[in-house]
Amino acid sequence: MEFLDQAHAARYAARVLAQAPTGQKDDALHAMADVLVERAGSILSANGDDVRSAQTAGTSPALIDRLRLTEARIGQMASGLRDIAGLADPVGDVVRGWTTENGLRIRQVRVPFGVIGIIYEARPNVTADAGGICLKSGNAVLLRGSSSAHASNVAVVDALRAGLERAGLPPAAVQLVPGPREVTDRLMTARGLVDLLIPRGGAGLINHVVEHSTVPVIETGTGNCHLYVDAAADLDIAYDIMMNAKTQRPSVCNALETLLVHRDVADAFLPRALWGLGEAGVSVHGDARTADYSEAVRPATEDDFEAEWLSLDLSAKVVDSIDEAIEHIRRYSSGHSETIVTDSITASEKFVASIDAAAVLVNASSRFVDGGEFGFGAEIGISTQKLHARGPMALPEMTSTKYVVEGHGQVRG
Amino acid sequence: MEFLDQAHAARYAARVLAQAPTGQKDDALHAMADVLVERAGSILSANGDDVRSAQTAGTSPALIDRLRLTEARIGQMASGLRDIAGLADPVGDVVRGWTTENGLRIRQVRVPFGVIGIIYEARPNVTADAGGICLKSGNAVLLRGSSSAHASNVAVVDALRAGLERAGLPPAAVQLVPGPREVTDRLMTARGLVDLLIPRGGAGLINHVVEHSTVPVIETGTGNCHLYVDAAADLDIAYDIMMNAKTQRPSVCNALETLLVHRDVADAFLPRALWGLGEAGVSVHGDARTADYSEAVRPATEDDFEAEWLSLDLSAKVVDSIDEAIEHIRRYSSGHSETIVTDSITASEKFVASIDAAAVLVNASSRFVDGGEFGFGAEIGISTQKLHARGPMALPEMTSTKYVVEGHGQVRG
Repeated sequence: MEFLDQAHAARYAARVLAQAPTGQKDDALHAMADVLVERAGSILSANGDDVRSAQTAGTSPALIDRLRLTEARIGQMASGLRDIAGLADPVGDVVRGWTTENGLRIRQVRVPFGVIGIIYEARPNVTADAGGICLKSGNAVLLRGSSSAHASNVAVVDALRAGLERAGLPPAAVQLVPGPREVTDRLMTARGLVDLLIPRGGAGLINHVVEHSTVPVIETGTGNCHLYVDAAADLDIAYDIMMNAKTQRPSVCNALETLLVHRDVADAFLPRALWGLGEAGVSVHGDARTADYSEAVRPATEDDFEAEWLSLDLSAKVVDSIDEAIEHIRRYSSGHSETIVTDSITASEKFVASIDAAAVLVNASSRFVDGGEFGFGAEIGISTQKLHARGPMALPEMTSTKYVVEGHGQVRG
Repeated sequence: MEFLDQAHAARYAARVLAQAPTGQKDDALHAMADVLVERAGSILSANGDDVRSAQTAGTSPALIDRLRLTEARIGQMASGLRDIAGLADPVGDVVRGWTTENGLRIRQVRVPFGVIGIIYEARPNVTADAGGICLKSGNAVLLRGSSSAHASNVAVVDALRAGLERAGLPPAAVQLVPGPREVTDRLMTARGLVDLLIPRGGAGLINHVVEHSTVPVIETGTGNCHLYVDAAADLDIAYDIMMNAKTQRPSVCNALETLLVHRDVADAFLPRALWGLGEAGVSVHGDARTADYSEAVRPATEDDFEAEWLSLDLSAKVVDSIDEAIEHIRRYSSGHSETIVTDSITASEKFVASIDAAAVLVNASSRFVDGGEFGFGAEIGISTQKLHARGPMALPEMTSTKYVVEGHGQVRG
């Protein structure tokens, strides 16, 4: 099917979804989960084709791990859909309401966006997650996955569409948008047909979409996250948070990328920190003062401080003051998650007020900046832009609002 | 000063404003108002230069009326600033807050965007309004006004900056961005320096900004607003709302542009409606069935139904059903404000649920869709996009949020 036909079918489906009762959407989510499990064999077979092609093409083991599905991962996709069915439906929520002096009753009500485009990399589980979140929030979705996951995505989307049909909802509510690279450009410029684009992936993808899209975009997921160990830090807490934020899952956007240590605690903190990082396999790229504490530290370049490593690498610097730490973060931050460890209320308040990021953490690991950990129950991504949604995005963030104004014949004087 | 220098100065000022106490911002707003009144003579003199140049250039009387300042209009600008000082400060508001199972305290707090760019046409009063609203919401502003209002804008901005200085705030918080057309392009692509762009003006300006900007944009103000007179309408109410929405101020975005009448009430409504519209000087562009009721009706073209007239013109059509009315509105609506007049709960609910617009009105004039009429006390524009803000935008809509996460050493398991 041509892109324009797909987009028009999505718009029609969006009208149906916008008025679908919560129970019907939840039935569809459970049916989607059922079909995924029923068809696990054929989904795994399709995924096996993708994995073999990727191996032939010399794709890295890390990327192949993201691409590969297993029976367990299909089970997780299904239970994720059932979890979404259990969440509150944001559509119809009254955000606020009041009566004006002349008796107009005004309500601001949550409504779906309409049609959402999602552009993402070779992770077939995103297909099910995104499909489920868009459905529950009343939106139709056009999924632009990676060509290297195409067979897997076709199998997963077919299962989701079968679930929609079982619940009496239009299967055009979830569509895969295949085809050459030009199709991505058409998705990005389909003003009036697509209401919102969410790119999920690396900085290159996101920058490309922001620069070329005329459809409104929510930027997600680039995280050059800093940890500042203040002069008044509890150093045991600082150590635990550093190790957790850097090593627990280094490949994700809320992992730690740069360590800043106040000079007054450098002697007490850095020898132990560098030893622990080394034991965990972390390569430290530090300034000269950091390098004084260990021969394993490599000299840090300007690029290192700009890097979102997403690996067992860490930039490090000793700073003379909290102000220097704040200036460093202002210069290099991608606005995702920034952390201070301190026992000082003054330092904490200064850091929280001065740092401009989706999340600012005091004495806690940046790995908590996540829809699941925040208790949202679902997450479509972590927004690093300031417009509409900032930080983890769940179901309410996937809606717009409209004002409903009710009167009895009022006119303006 | 070069654009980049201005943008960097704005970023620095934004950091100061973000942490400025409400009282200091309010002092600045009152001081701005004081200086505007003190300097009324020189502002009027500068405005006189602009008006004479516009007259020489053959500018239309309507545009010259928007450009012209008077002592009274300067007084309104000053009292507008004092009104903004009286409004609640959105910065620091806790939108929501909770404690997670592992004891993290999470708050979502309103923060300023940072630097806002506003591109607008030759209305010097917008300079003061936009400056005041951005200041109160903690944002620095780069004002890109029309070259035909340049002398007036310089005089007004100088007065606003003097007010900022009197209150001890950086004058770089309010800057006019002059220069050739290329400067507009630089403003639209200043990612990382400018956080948000708001174009205020006609559809041409807004489309240009949306297509060329890489900075996030809020679209404002294009309104092809419809009134549907249902079979179950109170026809006196329908008549009053039609006349008010079309004639009370035809040049604004919430004015009526298209009338749709159910066939069952066409005989009872249209003769009177067309007579009243004619008396008020309104030209009706109608379909054949509308034209049956008056010889004054001109035949409507496809373009007429797409038009945002902003004048004493009105498109009109007789429809067979509420479904036909809804389909017509879906096809031609700009998503601003759409109205039904009916006494039927069934019709009202169907219309409200089916129409996708910033505001849907039942038995009230679309002229009420306005920040002042909604009781917001200030308005920077009416958003017709779905992302971030939809409908009238006041102070809270001029902020983003950030999450503040406080713990005592928690790490993720």
